[in-house]
Amino acid sequence: METKRPLILITNDDGVGSRGIEHLIRIANTLGDVVVVAPDAAQSGKSSAITVNTPLYVNEMAPIDGARVFTTSGTPVDCVKLAMFTVLDRKPDLLLSGINHGSNAAVNNIYSGTMGATMEGCILGIPSIGYSLLSHSPNADFDPLTEYIKEITANVIREGLPEGICLNVNFPARCNPKGIKVIRAAKGRWTEEYASYSTPHGTPFYWLTGKFYNEEPDNPETDEYWLAREYGTVVPIRPDQTAPDKITEIANLLRLPASDD
Amino acid sequence: METKRPLILITNDDGVGSRGIEHLIRIANTLGDVVVVAPDAAQSGKSSAITVNTPLYVNEMAPIDGARVFTTSGTPVDCVKLAMFTVLDRKPDLLLSGINHGSNAAVNNIYSGTMGATMEGCILGIPSIGYSLLSHSPNADFDPLTEYIKEITANVIREGLPEGICLNVNFPARCNPKGIKVIRAAKGRWTEEYASYSTPHGTPFYWLTGKFYNEEPDNPETDEYWLAREYGTVVPIRPDQTAPDKITEIANLLRLPASDD
Repeated sequence: METKRPLILITNDDGVGSRGIEHLIRIANTLGDVVVVAPDAAQSGKSSAITVNTPLYVNEMAPIDGARVFTTSGTPVDCVKLAMFTVLDRKPDLLLSGINHGSNAAVNNIYSGTMGATMEGCILGIPSIGYSLLSHSPNADFDPLTEYIKEITANVIREGLPEGICLNVNFPARCNPKGIKVIRAAKGRWTEEYASYSTPHGTPFYWLTGKFYNEEPDNPETDEYWLAREYGTVVPIRPDQTAPDKITEIANLLRLPASDD
Repeated sequence: METKRPLILITNDDGVGSRGIEHLIRIANTLGDVVVVAPDAAQSGKSSAITVNTPLYVNEMAPIDGARVFTTSGTPVDCVKLAMFTVLDRKPDLLLSGINHGSNAAVNNIYSGTMGATMEGCILGIPSIGYSLLSHSPNADFDPLTEYIKEITANVIREGLPEGICLNVNFPARCNPKGIKVIRAAKGRWTEEYASYSTPHGTPFYWLTGKFYNEEPDNPETDEYWLAREYGTVVPIRPDQTAPDKITEIANLLRLPASDD
């Protein structure tokens, strides 16, 4: 008796030509039927941006490892929407995003196109996982991650995920992870410094740079703590940013009625 | 004895030429010293996107209602970062974003550039409020909102906001709000439909459209319910999307250790 293979949608934010997505396709091909809908070029830092004021193109490319591959001119979230509403003829059973070249731990979740796509899958009711490696190298070695990604993905295919929750999975660079921790994101922010320049015509311009400031570097309940110690981390993510626990406090502060008044 | 006036940073996602931001500047000028750092063109749907691969420009423009105005070539979040790290010489006491031409209620929070900027202010430790009107008209009438915005803003200047929380404020179109409710966002999602076209050369292309599907239209604990009944809504927003309450469940599901193991 044959079991139906799950339909797995894969996207990313580094673009379809990156090593990370190719590695993810090869892993996913062992677990289900894969369709790739990914940006035609790098879309890093695109968060949950959607394209509202320009048209979008979808092109079918040569298969990768046997999987059908479509590229779009849009953001990672556009890719998920285009996949759902123009490319696929049914809702996928799973969405995988990545493997991102670079960290999406801690506050990076909110800026990440990889996680934007993952959260979009979650909003659309698809169990969704974003995978990232803490290395920006285009030639990063993804091999040490294969068994970890396969096991996490297979477990999610089998068990599903709680409603409204997706996963942000990060792996340390340059080594085999010592293990995997399910954990919350560290609190912190980027302290941005802009490199400043001047055009040949004397006009100033700026380029984003900066350092991540971790508010709690010694806290073993955070992803950054374990990534620094060469563990992989799985952070449950809730795309819905409503804070219902703060309604009464905010109502009092604004001298306004809360929802139940 | 003179009290020091608060420094208020204003941005938006419709661009500096929109009526909404001009109206917000006029209100804020009555409450503090205003500096505007806003996109030079429309940046709708940009979420928390940041510009990492291209340079950014900052230009000082003519004042609006006496406030200094800078435009940037970046996203709304870029505007907040550029304001903090290149334009202002101290951290603002308050960030206001908007008034957006269009709804940012319910799931729109995650796609919105208006709310991307608001959440960035919150991440950087600034009490931050995003204001939106449920009308896309460039000539929308913002006058009925003036007293509501002034009161909410003044209360936040006086009381501050809880750590890690910012506000997403929406007003109904075409009338005086009947009142204001502090409430959570409705659960739902966009059911996207793409308008499909063909170039003169026969290449297909797509344009994003769609309808918001509200999972709970009759629930009086949600913003959409009250907006439909011509109330304004204040939703407390937590930019940090970690779901620590789901760590044990996810660890069990993945057969992995949770943070405390």
